[in-house]
Amino acid sequence: MLNLESVEQATQLLKGKVHRTPILQSSTLNEIAGCDLYFKCENLQKTGAFKARGALNSVLNLPEECHAVITHSSGNHGAALAWAARQQNLTCYVVCPETASATKKANIRRYGGIIIPCGPELASREEVMREFLDSHESHVVPPYDDDLIIAGQGTMALELLDQVKDLEEIWVPVGGGGLISGCIVGAGNRARVVGAEPELAGETYESLQRKERLPPYPPKSIADGLLAGVGVRNFEILSRHQTSVFLVTEAEIVEAMRLIWSTLKIVIEPSSAVPMAALLKNKEKVRGKHVGVVLTGGNVQVDLAK
Amino acid sequence: MLNLESVEQATQLLKGKVHRTPILQSSTLNEIAGCDLYFKCENLQKTGAFKARGALNSVLNLPEECHAVITHSSGNHGAALAWAARQQNLTCYVVCPETASATKKANIRRYGGIIIPCGPELASREEVMREFLDSHESHVVPPYDDDLIIAGQGTMALELLDQVKDLEEIWVPVGGGGLISGCIVGAGNRARVVGAEPELAGETYESLQRKERLPPYPPKSIADGLLAGVGVRNFEILSRHQTSVFLVTEAEIVEAMRLIWSTLKIVIEPSSAVPMAALLKNKEKVRGKHVGVVLTGGNVQVDLAK
Repeated sequence: MLNLESVEQATQLLKGKVHRTPILQSSTLNEIAGCDLYFKCENLQKTGAFKARGALNSVLNLPEECHAVITHSSGNHGAALAWAARQQNLTCYVVCPETASATKKANIRRYGGIIIPCGPELASREEVMREFLDSHESHVVPPYDDDLIIAGQGTMALELLDQVKDLEEIWVPVGGGGLISGCIVGAGNRARVVGAEPELAGETYESLQRKERLPPYPPKSIADGLLAGVGVRNFEILSRHQTSVFLVTEAEIVEAMRLIWSTLKIVIEPSSAVPMAALLKNKEKVRGKHVGVVLTGGNVQVDLAK
Repeated sequence: MLNLESVEQATQLLKGKVHRTPILQSSTLNEIAGCDLYFKCENLQKTGAFKARGALNSVLNLPEECHAVITHSSGNHGAALAWAARQQNLTCYVVCPETASATKKANIRRYGGIIIPCGPELASREEVMREFLDSHESHVVPPYDDDLIIAGQGTMALELLDQVKDLEEIWVPVGGGGLISGCIVGAGNRARVVGAEPELAGETYESLQRKERLPPYPPKSIADGLLAGVGVRNFEILSRHQTSVFLVTEAEIVEAMRLIWSTLKIVIEPSSAVPMAALLKNKEKVRGKHVGVVLTGGNVQVDLAK
């Protein structure tokens, strides 16, 4: 049974093993948004993304006889699992779309993960993984639809609420829903959790509207960390808490990303910019509030502008 | 008389008015460098550069009857002074080369600074400033060759030594020498301060070799914050302490900058990458040590890599 206690247990387990990531503030961005923004820098987390939390929580809860883990991931969860597996001397296989970004694939390999290529669609990933498991014994660590993963990601919310005492809302991007459902469970009544999703990957928004879990849209958004469809457990948690999710366009994502790069001086990937884009589009919802904005990852290649 | 007490006074004066900037660490970069690196993120400082420290220390020490300040700057000191002046409701004029980066000029204007254009050479800046002063009463706040500026920049070293108790060395870039001389005065015997300079702007290195202060080289380096020649006070402090300065090529600067962007997930400008480039070129000097690397600023325009 997933509850606050699960998140608190994960917090104890991860203590000292993942970074307590800093909070950044900017008077320029507060002025633009008309509220007090607290940017939670999970792009500065181990492996460059919050995914290290859930992955390590899963690995630390494995039965002792387990010697290999496997997952499918467009990148950040794969790198996080490879990193977590290495801490425990386990082999890690990552079924990864050939279309995944070079930065993200390099990140998986950097931590010793073994990439098994697949097509870009979720169906292909799952088929390739099933076939591989027939011949290789390994423990499946799902990217988001899993209690240990959700509890691990939820530790981010407890940490943020500990760092900013009077926080009223936490805005997070929604892909498969691991982070947002962990935040909802972790934050409880202490802060309202709000989701943000690209229009081009808006199946969570649509699923909540229709009260029916839909499959993912075709993978088209620049926010490559948010292409997964919402998971069963994740959708249940979002529905039960009547969570609001806001949609943004691709142009709004790129604009918010550049604004954060140039003002906060940190590198974030497109997925991380989605909550800021949503918030700037819905300023009336946050006016005067104390709002946490989760910058989920920084695995993107940047260059000097021409 | 500039001494540790001057830096301690500046620390008291600046308390709560500038950011206590975070320290970042990366096991990947420690492995590459063969030592323990502590990156001091002054790119996350107010105005995006350490220059906010010296500028505010100067402004807070102005006589009450002063209503306007002026300086010449290729960018970061100008923005910092405009920001500091605004805190005290003063007018700020910045004599700024027309060739300065658009990002840096925008940053000066963002804080209400009034830009007075000049040519790219130091001689042109000083002439334009003298002419302007004939008709406008304002207090000159020099960018680096000034005791209050040096003491203000030195607060960075005290803060860093407070954050990392067993630090042995502090590597900093050298332009006019405000930061490095402040660090030398602030750190005293607690840590060795080491300088790094682009070959194309290596007049401090050459001046120390020749024991004679040379004028700046023609402004050619990509490290646009380091084009100034070393100041009189600054050269005196560097000479007296027999400070080591290492040279790096333009290619080494760009490589170190990309490495920091992609690993630490933060935006730094080319000048900030110079110490890391120098350290990677001289690994035998730092092997196994605890080394602070000062990332001095983040005012650069980045874009998604192709």
